[in-house]
Amino acid sequence: MLRIAVIGAGRIGHVHARSVANHPEAQLVLVCDPIGDAAEKLATQYGARSCKDADEVFANPEVDAVIIGSPTHLHLPQLIAAAKAGKAVLCEKPVAQDVAQVEAVQDELDQITTPVMFGFNRRFDPSFAAVKKGVDEGKIGDLEQLTIISRDPAAPPASYIKVSGGIFRDMTIHDFDMARNFLGDIAEVNASGQNFVPEIKAEGDFDAAVVVLTAANGKVATIINNRRCASGYDQRLEAAGSEGAMFAENVRAHTVRLSTAESTNAEAPYLDFFLDRYEAAYSNELSAFINAVSTGKAPEPGLNDAVKALRIADAATTSAHEGRPVRLDA
Amino acid sequence: MLRIAVIGAGRIGHVHARSVANHPEAQLVLVCDPIGDAAEKLATQYGARSCKDADEVFANPEVDAVIIGSPTHLHLPQLIAAAKAGKAVLCEKPVAQDVAQVEAVQDELDQITTPVMFGFNRRFDPSFAAVKKGVDEGKIGDLEQLTIISRDPAAPPASYIKVSGGIFRDMTIHDFDMARNFLGDIAEVNASGQNFVPEIKAEGDFDAAVVVLTAANGKVATIINNRRCASGYDQRLEAAGSEGAMFAENVRAHTVRLSTAESTNAEAPYLDFFLDRYEAAYSNELSAFINAVSTGKAPEPGLNDAVKALRIADAATTSAHEGRPVRLDA
Amino acid sequence: MLRIAVIGAGRIGHVHARSVANHPEAQLVLVCDPIGDAAEKLATQYGARSCKDADEVFANPEVDAVIIGSPTHLHLPQLIAAAKAGKAVLCEKPVAQDVAQVEAVQDELDQITTPVMFGFNRRFDPSFAAVKKGVDEGKIGDLEQLTIISRDPAAPPASYIKVSGGIFRDMTIHDFDMARNFLGDIAEVNASGQNFVPEIKAEGDFDAAVVVLTAANGKVATIINNRRCASGYDQRLEAAGSEGAMFAENVRAHTVRLSTAESTNAEAPYLDFFLDRYEAAYSNELSAFINAVSTGKAPEPGLNDAVKALRIADAATTSAHEGRPVRLDA
Amino acid sequence: MLRIAVIGAGRIGHVHARSVANHPEAQLVLVCDPIGDAAEKLATQYGARSCKDADEVFANPEVDAVIIGSPTHLHLPQLIAAAKAGKAVLCEKPVAQDVAQVEAVQDELDQITTPVMFGFNRRFDPSFAAVKKGVDEGKIGDLEQLTIISRDPAAPPASYIKVSGGIFRDMTIHDFDMARNFLGDIAEVNASGQNFVPEIKAEGDFDAAVVVLTAANGKVATIINNRRCASGYDQRLEAAGSEGAMFAENVRAHTVRLSTAESTNAEAPYLDFFLDRYEAAYSNELSAFINAVSTGKAPEPGLNDAVKALRIADAATTSAHEGRPVRLDA
Repeated sequence: MLRIAVIGAGRIGHVHARSVANHPEAQLVLVCDPIGDAAEKLATQYGARSCKDADEVFANPEVDAVIIGSPTHLHLPQLIAAAKAGKAVLCEKPVAQDVAQVEAVQDELDQITTPVMFGFNRRFDPSFAAVKKGVDEGKIGDLEQLTIISRDPAAPPASYIKVSGGIFRDMTIHDFDMARNFLGDIAEVNASGQNFVPEIKAEGDFDAAVVVLTAANGKVATIINNRRCASGYDQRLEAAGSEGAMFAENVRAHTVRLSTAESTNAEAPYLDFFLDRYEAAYSNELSAFINAVSTGKAPEPGLNDAVKALRIADAATTSAHEGRPVRLDA
Repeated sequence: MLRIAVIGAGRIGHVHARSVANHPEAQLVLVCDPIGDAAEKLATQYGARSCKDADEVFANPEVDAVIIGSPTHLHLPQLIAAAKAGKAVLCEKPVAQDVAQVEAVQDELDQITTPVMFGFNRRFDPSFAAVKKGVDEGKIGDLEQLTIISRDPAAPPASYIKVSGGIFRDMTIHDFDMARNFLGDIAEVNASGQNFVPEIKAEGDFDAAVVVLTAANGKVATIINNRRCASGYDQRLEAAGSEGAMFAENVRAHTVRLSTAESTNAEAPYLDFFLDRYEAAYSNELSAFINAVSTGKAPEPGLNDAVKALRIADAATTSAHEGRPVRLDA
Repeated sequence: MLRIAVIGAGRIGHVHARSVANHPEAQLVLVCDPIGDAAEKLATQYGARSCKDADEVFANPEVDAVIIGSPTHLHLPQLIAAAKAGKAVLCEKPVAQDVAQVEAVQDELDQITTPVMFGFNRRFDPSFAAVKKGVDEGKIGDLEQLTIISRDPAAPPASYIKVSGGIFRDMTIHDFDMARNFLGDIAEVNASGQNFVPEIKAEGDFDAAVVVLTAANGKVATIINNRRCASGYDQRLEAAGSEGAMFAENVRAHTVRLSTAESTNAEAPYLDFFLDRYEAAYSNELSAFINAVSTGKAPEPGLNDAVKALRIADAATTSAHEGRPVRLDA
Repeated sequence: MLRIAVIGAGRIGHVHARSVANHPEAQLVLVCDPIGDAAEKLATQYGARSCKDADEVFANPEVDAVIIGSPTHLHLPQLIAAAKAGKAVLCEKPVAQDVAQVEAVQDELDQITTPVMFGFNRRFDPSFAAVKKGVDEGKIGDLEQLTIISRDPAAPPASYIKVSGGIFRDMTIHDFDMARNFLGDIAEVNASGQNFVPEIKAEGDFDAAVVVLTAANGKVATIINNRRCASGYDQRLEAAGSEGAMFAENVRAHTVRLSTAESTNAEAPYLDFFLDRYEAAYSNELSAFINAVSTGKAPEPGLNDAVKALRIADAATTSAHEGRPVRLDA
């Protein structure tokens, strides 16, 4: 039984708290959030205790592991503090706003010995994970071309874009991690950006992008992004290999099809809120974390993976803005 | 090279003439139709000759085989005349309006020695045929339950209903042949009829029906009919067995799916004209006929199959009107 | 906040306890089970109390509502006791083994004034519910023909069959409730049974069935059952109307499709454990119950619905064994 | 009635001859092929005449239009000769091996006044055409991102690769035309090539490619190619716009799905011979040609389109080999 504290009682904190409460090998012992009674309300629902100061979490000897769901700028300091206190850590992505922030605390990160996992939740989505498993089992022969379609339901406001770090660091970073998950390390990034939303163009950012990643092993991933998709959260993946292909399709609220005189087999829109779309992924992610901690295996994706995804995002930003391929060191 | 004459230059005659012209082992030599210049026009398109009197077809020594696409009441006399003249015959269904008409000429039918095939075109539909092949190959283990959904795009006028012989003889007869194709001979018919179209009810006929057929071997077929379907010609089949199931889905004009904010993956309506829906079936049917004639094997479905389907239709009519199961002799 | 007790800490009790714990307007206060430490273990996971005697549940003033997940023969007595104690009740189906058992306590049932709902969970399945909603909204015009395909993943052992009450009372009863949900009261039942599993035939029961229900309003439902399905728990529904049709498809663990040289778009088997297949249904069922109790509306399906489904099952049993349609009183 | 001659009695000539014979407004009058009795055999099947010398076609006053299905190096000289003789021309692609060959006869091409259409058959595929129509009708709002998946069933031999002009001129050229069909003129080409087939790499060519095209209007097309696909001829297209998306899926021989214990809904492989896959496209292409000629409208795609596709192919070749984006003049 792993005793877990959740830092951050926002919407992602709620998801993690529920996953912990429903997990037969975990116990939710503490919820921490500095704002109002958010922590207390969430803790009460699942019979846990609450606090407002994260230091209480780190100091608490009854806490074995910490899930960090706080704002991005707190990720690194809380991760380091939790690890110093001997806690296992499951930290929400991104690790930081850019690679430079990570390098600034590299010494402290190098000293971490407790298990640290990063919440690239999509790796744990049942469909994406099933494709990965199938590829690993050889169901499609040698993987040759990976295609990731990843479109958000609606563009965020300009105010968000301003502080987002740009589409590649904010949105595509999930797809970069997914590409690494399938192809291993990336050798070259060839990105182009498009603008269909004037408000985002005004911020100097792209609202759509196509990125071609060439892996060190010669395989290729194509990522197609758009900040908006009328039908919902468009999250698909296609792995094509020498002997077959696997496709992960979108998720809908139900399986109903409607046929009329105008059209047939019309299905529901895609689930369009990321917490709904990836509900099972968050639960499976927690299981993977608990399993890694309890068996002593290094959890994946780890800190190293989080940093590598960020490096690809930096390279893509350069590639798209300068109109040229950018190579990454091995 | 089989030299073929087509009797009847209506729409079904056009379909057969084109199939013959495109078939590498067949030659269209003669088209016969008594009305206006119908035969001449059709013959000209494919470089064949034409005539107005069917007797010219039977007398012509350059004709090896005859496709009969004339009105139903001519099927039996033309079939008998063609066979007497030594021609192979592919005859459109139904063989007659009812079983009594067949029995009236039973002696002449018994003397036929040339190949005679009946145009139950659906057996040759690529999808239904693929299910049949899969079942025969054991892909679903032992077939246990067959389900046939068969709905017309729109109800015919009351004037047609009046002379149609009723829904079971006019419409369900295709499904009865299909059920026999999968299950063999039928032992019991349990039919119920519904009315959703007042004009058809006024004629004393049903416009929808559910028929449960129990085969001599204990397997069961369920047929669901409706005289109208908003999305087109709804023609499906599902074969469920001990180790799996096969499904034949509807056919559309193209493979396009449309996704918007309201719905996703909306496809085109079903093809709704039977000549479009079963275009490939008619062509495959001709190939089967040519193959049977050239190899000397008895063509299937034959006269016997046509009569058995009609017997089931008679039994279904009784069952639905009297509200009780009706048994058929073996 | 509705304070809820769960009677029965078996697998269905676990499902209900989790739904209650995760529901923002409900609180799990008590779990009751007479066997071993089942109640205590389940209660602990969600921070609730436990007891072994159901009378403690009924006597507890802090319990507003009771979910009855005990063995079938306890349903009626516990339902009556809970209602007498003023508790709202959500009771698992079936209400009893046959209608006679219900009639034996009719007087007591007639005196119940607290809300009573029956757990026909399929009404709350997201897909079936979406079809119902679409039909009610007129998306397919007037509903004319309902088709329910309902196949279990694997046949139960003969020992279970012996005490099951027969396929119609044990398995088809869900489909009878679903048919009533769409068509209203049923006027005639025309059932046929098949045997493909010798062990079940030896018990005098059918292992497959086709049932045609004619509703009082003339609409028709066709139910196709099989005790086994190689691909999993085959649960589908098709509602065909004057202006369109809606289809509820099977549910799979993920959306992945595999294409190879042999076949394309192969998907996962159907979810084959009923608790997985209907996980969302149980959660939605609880929400409906809580909503009914808190708004004072009579919950649906109620006791009346449970009894009517049982009456149809009785009629189907007669119909299939006697080979004739059976009429039901209005 | 358009009187048509077909030059080339190879497999593409057979396709065109059949389309002409079956078209109600066309007449196949002449088939020309210099080799053996190919022309005579094909002509006989459809009641036409034959010749061995293309000059007889051009000189024949009973020929209104010529379909050129000869080897590539004859396309330009025969096109020019036919046009000089006043014939309308439907010419197979590519117009030439490279743009230089076209420019060498530019003066003669500039003098052509008869209708000239090029056989980019995919524009006439029912599915791709339905997407184009839907986009033009505004069904997806403003088109933003086009994705074309185009994979051949199997890699050609090295001997073919040697004379093919490279993957972009030989294979991707279809996709370049399709991109122009949707996006208009292309401003920038960013291509990368991969090698998974050693024999093709040995020839200095790529066997897989990802090409990102940016149109003059800022929209983007992503093309994913592979010389081989285990499941058949993988031909898909996805048009994503501001208000929706349209998808053209692969084509199969029938609609059957197979479900077993291992997988469900497995469909047939994709049609894998281009003449089967695009059978309807060739027929529709002929209709478009006949319609253009008879109404006096310039047929599309014309010579200009053929040359522009070739220019993109040249640019893609440079881009992939030099690892940089290449801009095209307007």
